[in-house]
Amino acid sequence: MCNTLIATWRMALEGVTEAMPVASLQQAVVSAVMNVEDNPLYHSVGYGGLPNIQGEVELDAAFMEGDTLNYGAVGAVKFLKNPILAAQALSRSQRNNVLTATGALEFAIQQGLALRENRYALSQDKWKAALQQTAKEALQEAYDGHDTVCVLGASCSGSVCAGVSTSGLFLKKTGRLGDSPIIGSGCYADSASGAAAATGVGEDIMKGCLSWEIVRLMANHSPQYACEQVVHQHTETLIKRKGECGSISVIALNKAGEWGAATNKAEFSFVVGEPEKGVHVWLARCSGGVHSLERASPQWLENYLSNLPAGSGN
Amino acid sequence: MCNTLIATWRMALEGVTEAMPVASLQQAVVSAVMNVEDNPLYHSVGYGGLPNIQGEVELDAAFMEGDTLNYGAVGAVKFLKNPILAAQALSRSQRNNVLTATGALEFAIQQGLALRENRYALSQDKWKAALQQTAKEALQEAYDGHDTVCVLGASCSGSVCAGVSTSGLFLKKTGRLGDSPIIGSGCYADSASGAAAATGVGEDIMKGCLSWEIVRLMANHSPQYACEQVVHQHTETLIKRKGECGSISVIALNKAGEWGAATNKAEFSFVVGEPEKGVHVWLARCSGGVHSLERASPQWLENYLSNLPAGSGN
Repeated sequence: MCNTLIATWRMALEGVTEAMPVASLQQAVVSAVMNVEDNPLYHSVGYGGLPNIQGEVELDAAFMEGDTLNYGAVGAVKFLKNPILAAQALSRSQRNNVLTATGALEFAIQQGLALRENRYALSQDKWKAALQQTAKEALQEAYDGHDTVCVLGASCSGSVCAGVSTSGLFLKKTGRLGDSPIIGSGCYADSASGAAAATGVGEDIMKGCLSWEIVRLMANHSPQYACEQVVHQHTETLIKRKGECGSISVIALNKAGEWGAATNKAEFSFVVGEPEKGVHVWLARCSGGVHSLERASPQWLENYLSNLPAGSGN
Repeated sequence: MCNTLIATWRMALEGVTEAMPVASLQQAVVSAVMNVEDNPLYHSVGYGGLPNIQGEVELDAAFMEGDTLNYGAVGAVKFLKNPILAAQALSRSQRNNVLTATGALEFAIQQGLALRENRYALSQDKWKAALQQTAKEALQEAYDGHDTVCVLGASCSGSVCAGVSTSGLFLKKTGRLGDSPIIGSGCYADSASGAAAATGVGEDIMKGCLSWEIVRLMANHSPQYACEQVVHQHTETLIKRKGECGSISVIALNKAGEWGAATNKAEFSFVVGEPEKGVHVWLARCSGGVHSLERASPQWLENYLSNLPAGSGN
């Protein structure tokens, strides 16, 4: 138990808890992501992920290793059981590190990675219901729910890495990439400083290269300062330039194992696992421009579980 | 004639020359890119672009507008006559700004954009010849030639924008994205500072979010300083971390119309069009860590033309 892990959303709790005893930093990060990819009750990642406009589950994932800056990503790929494994495999190549659509699928098959039909009854029902709504209502609702799992890890020897995985925007167009497979936007890891990742409206996140910026700031600032500064400044910039800014939440972890998180939403949950302190769910909040963090209360955790859909279906 | 334009490689000369009288900044940038896309003698962009490993021409393009930070990109898309037009159209959406593969093609067809079989005899011959070489020889040669056309523009009122287009790495895997469609890597434009773009080994460029970094530095430094600083630091970082760094060349243009360029290669050609000074081909050089710029000599320009392949075929 020497790695520190931080991950976006309460849905990462089980994966982070399982991954804490894993000695290899990369394996710990990848296995925490896989846990969420394999759980169909979490509707925005992997199995049971939210369908695109055509009802198909197209997945994005990325992996970055901070010692070598090795990076791999897949985008808009169907039928992978664990997109994060394809991203990790791609990060070991010198070239062709980012593959999309059928090209990404072909690579995964050549690598012998497991395939899966990721459509699942509960998320398909949500898609069918959306088709009954007016286009405007459906898109508004769709664009409010898009929770990427991002896992960052720091070893006690000061290496960092990052893994992210998502089904992206609900009702997105075929072939759409969000920020997740985009290096510097969805995640970035540099063992000289730290690692960062983002979740929210990908199109807005990528306009600020938010993960790159947080890692750059962490060279001279705390992760918490870097997260708050980047979320605050970028939200202000987009409101000024475009009149609005979508939801954005970020996490960061420096090479010393110190962490931070920030959001421009009312509430953003995340999970932290630390060698001496165990694994806990935290909440970041933003109210009137003021950022705060606190541990999730027992009541909050209970409400979360009671709001999960029943685990049958398909 | 109020816009300043800067573009990567000598191949952009005709397009920049034609675009200088165009009043609209966005139209000037897009038309300069289209000129290269439509010329089959330039083997790394659009028509006649270098094929992927399967002999197919898959194209990447991006467009960014610096007032609004609007951004659009297509990746690994076949059969578009002008990928830059699809990228520009996508930049006007609020969501789904980056589309890949068949999704990008479907969008372009829905927009009524022109299609084209981009395979061309000369580049197909190159592909067939590569298949006869040993895998190692072929890939080495392939990875040395991948010239993206990047065009940056600044209006006299201080707006900037950027457009890039490429067929990417010769013999790349199906579905591969380079830096060109990746915001902050292939290009970035922010009218508060300026615009920047990169050409070279995409996988190495994207590890440093080079266009974002140059634009960030231009807020307080000259374009030339920003270009040299970013190319130098990133090349050093990759050599230290991975033992090598591929070829990287960058151009930048600030909101005042001042420009810069740098490369980690022996020589990189680019084109500058300025309202009072006309259109000229320049060369950036890097020798022993020392960067320099000079106008291309009449002899250099003559050699370039005499080395172009004959314009028949197909």
